[in-house]
Amino acid sequence: MFNYIIVGSGFAGSVIAERIANVLNKKVLVIEKRSHIGGNCYDYRNKDGIIIHKYGPHLFHTNYKEVFDYLSNFTDWRIYYHKVLAFIDGKKVPIPFNFNSMDILFPEILSKKLQEKLLKKYPYGAKVPILKLKKENDKDLKFLADFVYEKIFKNYTIKQWGKRPEEIDSEVTARVPVCIGRDDRYFDDKYQALPEEGYTKIFERMLSHPNIKLMLNTDFKEIMKVDLKGKKIYFLGQEFKGKVIFTGMIDELFAYKFGMLPYRSLDLHLEVIEKEYFQEVAVVNYPNDYDFTRITEFKHIHPIKTNRTVILKEYPKDYDPERDIPYYPFFDKAAREVYAKYQELAERFDHLILVGRLAEYRYYDMDDVIKRSLEVFEERIR
Amino acid sequence: MFNYIIVGSGFAGSVIAERIANVLNKKVLVIEKRSHIGGNCYDYRNKDGIIIHKYGPHLFHTNYKEVFDYLSNFTDWRIYYHKVLAFIDGKKVPIPFNFNSMDILFPEILSKKLQEKLLKKYPYGAKVPILKLKKENDKDLKFLADFVYEKIFKNYTIKQWGKRPEEIDSEVTARVPVCIGRDDRYFDDKYQALPEEGYTKIFERMLSHPNIKLMLNTDFKEIMKVDLKGKKIYFLGQEFKGKVIFTGMIDELFAYKFGMLPYRSLDLHLEVIEKEYFQEVAVVNYPNDYDFTRITEFKHIHPIKTNRTVILKEYPKDYDPERDIPYYPFFDKAAREVYAKYQELAERFDHLILVGRLAEYRYYDMDDVIKRSLEVFEERIR
Ligand SMILES: Cc1cc2nc3c(=O)[nH]c(=O)nc-3n(C[C@H](O)[C@H](O)[C@H](O)COP(=O)(O)OP(=O)(O)OC[C@H]3O[C@@H](n4cnc5c(N)ncnc54)[C@H](O)[C@@H]3O)c2cc1C
Ligand SMILES: Cc1cc2nc3c(=O)[nH]c(=O)nc-3n(C[C@H](O)[C@H](O)[C@H](O)COP(=O)(O)OP(=O)(O)OC[C@H]3O[C@@H](n4cnc5c(N)ncnc54)[C@H](O)[C@@H]3O)c2cc1C
Repeated sequence: MFNYIIVGSGFAGSVIAERIANVLNKKVLVIEKRSHIGGNCYDYRNKDGIIIHKYGPHLFHTNYKEVFDYLSNFTDWRIYYHKVLAFIDGKKVPIPFNFNSMDILFPEILSKKLQEKLLKKYPYGAKVPILKLKKENDKDLKFLADFVYEKIFKNYTIKQWGKRPEEIDSEVTARVPVCIGRDDRYFDDKYQALPEEGYTKIFERMLSHPNIKLMLNTDFKEIMKVDLKGKKIYFLGQEFKGKVIFTGMIDELFAYKFGMLPYRSLDLHLEVIEKEYFQEVAVVNYPNDYDFTRITEFKHIHPIKTNRTVILKEYPKDYDPERDIPYYPFFDKAAREVYAKYQELAERFDHLILVGRLAEYRYYDMDDVIKRSLEVFEERIR
Repeated sequence: MFNYIIVGSGFAGSVIAERIANVLNKKVLVIEKRSHIGGNCYDYRNKDGIIIHKYGPHLFHTNYKEVFDYLSNFTDWRIYYHKVLAFIDGKKVPIPFNFNSMDILFPEILSKKLQEKLLKKYPYGAKVPILKLKKENDKDLKFLADFVYEKIFKNYTIKQWGKRPEEIDSEVTARVPVCIGRDDRYFDDKYQALPEEGYTKIFERMLSHPNIKLMLNTDFKEIMKVDLKGKKIYFLGQEFKGKVIFTGMIDELFAYKFGMLPYRSLDLHLEVIEKEYFQEVAVVNYPNDYDFTRITEFKHIHPIKTNRTVILKEYPKDYDPERDIPYYPFFDKAAREVYAKYQELAERFDHLILVGRLAEYRYYDMDDVIKRSLEVFEERIR
């Protein structure tokens, strides 16, 4: 009937399904608990034609040529350079924090002095993590580091993760740099572009193959059973002998046997505003004010002429498995240890493959997930 | 696992799935061979935000209060009165053909005379089928009947069905009336309105219930077997003991045992036009010119402010099972006889229920299908 079962239709599940269908010409069943495909990258058009990213803004950027080429099979692109402003001391300044930001926030003499010192110490165009800057033995650079730390990083991080900055894994903190220069772009990847008609169209094209059967609105637990002792997987009451590719939460797959992995979630508030534009760029961060971390205005991401606009406010919160979507893995040391146990258990299942942000419990961007899925297909499925 | 299996996610399948899930609180699997829900009523927004009816224009109109009330659970409405013009002798005139149409097409004296005669014979507001008019013993009315027959009905019918008018079942020809009055509305039903956000949203709301599992991209034949001898239905290799509700083609269900039922199909040509509007109303019929029967402009159905517009031309053709969608059952006497055989066979299956335009091989409008589905649910499922 089916040679493969895939749980989840985000990029991990959809890429692997597409490869199996097209390259191997085998039949695959994709099981998805939501009523739509695309996982967290799902988008749709509202009644004004504005494309809205249902689960928060998704900007595609990558240095992987193979990922860009692969996706180009399923979409045309519109070149787009993402810009983010942060609302600091009543002004909106570019981040990553750079010379333009200094010019807006600091008196001219201070800004000039800082720029001279930075240019002496670092090559033009470098991105210096604020944790590194903080340790410099220079009064002014230390001021700068503290300023950026206090005004841009600290409170944002507290809001985002609900913890003190010290408690946060360095993989996360390393994300916040100061840039030596005037490049206002948020990313520096070689390929930065948006799918012309949004992400959902990509998923539709990947999955609309006669070899792919798609089961929506279905939690895998409703039709599959995992036999932890016998290391077998049952589908509709019968042992499933084909490969199972699982892209959901690894702890849920194993019935939380070793406890729950921690995640951070979001409350997302969408607002329609009766004017042409609400803000200057796609995303404005609010580190110190309000309870939301940022406001996204979708018309900047997918331009369209309308009299109305739509914005999204993100309110981070802890993940409640009863109600919430697990947006961000929260990997401290304890979590990593629990994850390792699950991973070891997974390896003892013969035909089980775990791929993706939830299944691998990693901070994958879209391009990482696609790259990883293509690799897994080549190495373990093909 | 599932208590019910439904084949097809048009109105027939979706209404019954919704009822089973909400009223009976039982689990149901919906199998749909297309990559989307909604059957022929499916619509989507293009990149300008224009709602497009993928399988031809669908206008909701009904006299059944219970159907209108039921659908109101899943959508808000926008009041809309459908108007159709026919391109006749170089002019666009309202149809059903009425006094306004006569005033546009005929010299004033002729038009006045015709109107006086019609008003003497029929009550104001009446709709007189052209076949009836044709038989009147009055030179002028006969002229009118012949005119409408020749210019509006005949060639349209030949295009639409690929046959001579005489060969067409009267159920179809009776559809073309002359209206005694100046009411330009195409329908005269009590409830005429459009779902505010289109039809697909209705289906999404009907089907997004945890009891409903939705399997897209899946032909029932891929996972079900019909045992014609034993009168049993198998699902994934095992006998399925629950009820099966089938809304696809009855002849396909029974492997064309008694031959194929005839259908008429359409080639649909969508065009994007770089101006604000293309035509005056939602639908313009072309009985005598070109090869298409009509042009639909979707912006008139779901109004939106954009600089571009989208039109759809419909080219009728015979149904080829390899390539086409069976849009219209073509029921002549022979077809009805074949259908009767299938129906009799269906009745010999204990748990099989056939509902909908294809399964019952009937010219159901949306409201008919919904009414029928609600009845079938009450009488045979509840
Ligand atoms: C707020 C936010 C913003 C982001 N912004 C960016 C960005 O700008 N750029 C970027 O590159 N990346 C971004 N990402 C990351 C991106 O979303 C992920 O890389 C990508 O979605 C991972 O794909 P996936 O298939 O691994 O997981 P997902 O997209 O989460 O897909 C997993 C799928 O599995 C399904 N599933 C889970 N459990 C079950 C179950 N029990 N039964 C059946 N189905 C199940 C889920 O419903 C889901 O559809 C962002 C992430 C978030 C949360
Ligand atoms: C061009 C056109 C215009 C119309 N305009 C109007 C209008 O203006 N107003 C109005 O009220 N009505 C209109 N109708 C009628 C309306 O479309 C139908 O009443 C309605 O779609 C019937 O619903 P249904 O569920 O019976 O069938 P469908 O909508 O045809 O749904 C049947 C579903 O079953 C699926 N299916 C079929 N075979 C299989 C299989 N082997 N395996 C799995 N799935 C299968 C199909 O893919 C489809 O999704 C129009 C119809 C057409 C063709």
